[in-house]
Amino acid sequence: MRAAIRRGPAIVVDECEIPPLGQGQVRVRTHHCGICGSDLHAVHHFESFIDYGRRAGLLTGRIDPGRDVVLGHEFCAEIVEFGPGTERALKEGAMVGAFAVNFDEKGAEGVGWSNHYPGGYAEYMVLTESMLVPVTNGCPSERAALAEPMAVAIHAVNKADHQDSAYMVVGCGPIGLAIIAELKARGLGPVVAVDYVAERRAVAERLGADLLVDPAVGDPHDHWAGLDVPYGPVVYPRAQSRARRAVLFECVGVPGMLNRLIDAAPRNAQIIVAGVCMAPDSIEPSLAINKELEIKFSMAFSADEFRQSMHRICEGELDVSPLISRIVGLDELPATFDELLTAPRSAKVLVDPRR
Amino acid sequence: MRAAIRRGPAIVVDECEIPPLGQGQVRVRTHHCGICGSDLHAVHHFESFIDYGRRAGLLTGRIDPGRDVVLGHEFCAEIVEFGPGTERALKEGAMVGAFAVNFDEKGAEGVGWSNHYPGGYAEYMVLTESMLVPVTNGCPSERAALAEPMAVAIHAVNKADHQDSAYMVVGCGPIGLAIIAELKARGLGPVVAVDYVAERRAVAERLGADLLVDPAVGDPHDHWAGLDVPYGPVVYPRAQSRARRAVLFECVGVPGMLNRLIDAAPRNAQIIVAGVCMAPDSIEPSLAINKELEIKFSMAFSADEFRQSMHRICEGELDVSPLISRIVGLDELPATFDELLTAPRSAKVLVDPRR
Repeated sequence: MRAAIRRGPAIVVDECEIPPLGQGQVRVRTHHCGICGSDLHAVHHFESFIDYGRRAGLLTGRIDPGRDVVLGHEFCAEIVEFGPGTERALKEGAMVGAFAVNFDEKGAEGVGWSNHYPGGYAEYMVLTESMLVPVTNGCPSERAALAEPMAVAIHAVNKADHQDSAYMVVGCGPIGLAIIAELKARGLGPVVAVDYVAERRAVAERLGADLLVDPAVGDPHDHWAGLDVPYGPVVYPRAQSRARRAVLFECVGVPGMLNRLIDAAPRNAQIIVAGVCMAPDSIEPSLAINKELEIKFSMAFSADEFRQSMHRICEGELDVSPLISRIVGLDELPATFDELLTAPRSAKVLVDPRR
Repeated sequence: MRAAIRRGPAIVVDECEIPPLGQGQVRVRTHHCGICGSDLHAVHHFESFIDYGRRAGLLTGRIDPGRDVVLGHEFCAEIVEFGPGTERALKEGAMVGAFAVNFDEKGAEGVGWSNHYPGGYAEYMVLTESMLVPVTNGCPSERAALAEPMAVAIHAVNKADHQDSAYMVVGCGPIGLAIIAELKARGLGPVVAVDYVAERRAVAERLGADLLVDPAVGDPHDHWAGLDVPYGPVVYPRAQSRARRAVLFECVGVPGMLNRLIDAAPRNAQIIVAGVCMAPDSIEPSLAINKELEIKFSMAFSADEFRQSMHRICEGELDVSPLISRIVGLDELPATFDELLTAPRSAKVLVDPRR
C-alpha cells in the first residue's frame, strides 16, 4: 500500500507492507489523519523523542529510529476486514477512531509510533478491535479525526483550576486552538489567545477567544490587571483574596518559553504545559517560588476523555470545524511537513490517503 | 544595641540603633530567633535574592544590599514598650511571635528583611502590634520561635495531594524536617526521608519518618515499588489506578536537584518545591510531560497557617523539640553561619541575643 514514511530525517512517499491480521485485530481503511506536533518533532528530533519516551517508560521508547516508521495517530478510518478472534460488534464499513495502541502476542505496541504497525499516513492500518471507538450520528470523518487532539485538549483543561479563573493560551497551533475550543465549549473565560500568526488568531476568534494578542505588537501580560487578576506586589501575610486566578496554557514548546511565562505570570498562577519542548530548558526556580506558581505537565488523555471527545464531536456539542485548515493527499505530505516545520500558519492539517 | 549584622558578604557582630517607635508599633526584646536557609542565602547571594524578590514584587525586592541588614524573621520575643496609638490587648512582658512585616507611614516593610527594621539577630526589635501572635500556654520561647518555619512546612504540606499518597522528603534540613514533623503529626505516610547527613536522618527518625535513606548508599527511588507506587512503563490509554500517588518534597534547593527528581520520580508524581534554588536551573520538560508531573512551588504561609502553627506548638499538638539542635549567642553567629554554609549537620539553630 502507499504511505508517507518517516525515513531518516525526512518524510518520503513509498510503498509499504500491510501487517497481517493477528488475534483480535481488524484492518481499516484510513479516511483522514491529522498531523500532530509530535509527528513534526519525529522528523528531526526522533532520537531524543524516543530517548525521552524510553526514560519515562512509554511505548514510544521502543522505536528504532533507524528503521521506517509510518506516523499518524489522529485518525478516522473504515473497518474493512475482521481478523481471527474478533467480536464484530461493529460491522464492516463502520467508521471508527481508536486508541493508537495495539496488543499482540508480543504485548503492547503503538500505532503510528512503531516500526511494525503503520499509522494513519498509510492507506490501511491494523488496529486492535477492543481499542476502537465508533463514530456516531453520521459525523463526517474529518471531524471525527479531531477526537484525538480534542481529547488532549480536554485532558489539559481538566488539569486546570476553574474556580473563577482567567485563561491565557500561549501559542495557537492545533493544541492551543483545541484548548480554546474546549474552554469556550464549557462556557469558561475570559480567554486570551496569543500567537504571532494572524491566521491562527483568526481561528482563535472563531472559536470564541475573548481577547487576541499578537506578541509582536503588545505584551499579552499587560492584560492581567484588566481581567481582575492581581499583578502588583504582594505583602505577607497574604489576605484571602477573591480575585481571579490566572491559568496559562503553554502550547508553544520551544526552549525559553516556560521561563518567559514564569517571569511574566501573575503570582499564584497555574501553568499547564501542553507544548512539548524537546530540549533541556532553563528556568529560574526562585521566581517560581516567590510567586508560588504551579506547573502541571499534560500529555495525552484517559480512555474516558477520548470517548467523551468523540461523543461530543459526533453529537455536535463540540464544533471542531474551525480547527480544520485543509486536507491534503499523501503526495503533498512531505511539502506540508516542510511548511509546518518552518513557517506554520495553519491550524490542523489532515491527510486523506484515498486522494 | 548589639546585633549580628549582614554587612557585605559577611555576618559581623556590632552595635546598631533601635528604630524609634512609630504609630501602632511595639518594642520587643528578642528571646530566640531561628537561622533560616534564606538568611544563609543572604550572605553570599543577597543581590540575586533581592533581584528575584523585586521581579516577583516582594518586599525583599526593596532592600539595598550595600547597606547593613539585621536578618532574622523566625523569632519569639517579649513585649517591653508600647508606642503611640497601640491597643495594648497584650501586656508588657507578654511573649509573642509575629508576621515579619511592619507598617508605617511609608507603607509595608519587612522585619529582618530591611535596611530599617532589624530582625531577630538583635537584642531588640520594633514590630507592628497588629502583626503579633501571642505565645500561649507558657510555651517555652525556643519552641514558639519554631512557629515560623513550621508554618512554612504546614503551607507546603497543604499544597500536596493527600489521597492515599506516599511521601519522599529530599533534604532533611530544617524545612525538610519540619515537613516530616507536619506529615507525621497529621498521621500521613509512609514518609521516606533522604539526606546524606546521619545527624539529620536521626532527627527525621525521631520525628517519625518511616524510612531513612542515605543517597550515598542507596537510591531512594528504588523504594517506590515497595511503597505501592507504580514505577514501571505506562500503556495508553491508562486504566484508572487505585495505586498510591508519589508526593516528593524538594528541600535541597541546589541546581540540578529538580531535574534529578523529574528524572527519578514515578509518573503522575507531585513535586512540592520548598528548597530555594538561587540560580537558573536546567530541566527536561519532555520527561516531565511524558510522566505528567505536577510541580508546585511553595513559599511562606498564610496568616491563618501561621496562627495555626503557633497554636499547635503552644498547645503541645506539634512537638518541635527534636528540630532544635542548639542555641547560640550573638557572638557565635558568624562561626555558626560559616558552619551552616559549608558543612551543615544541624537541624534548626537558634540565636538567643540575651546571652
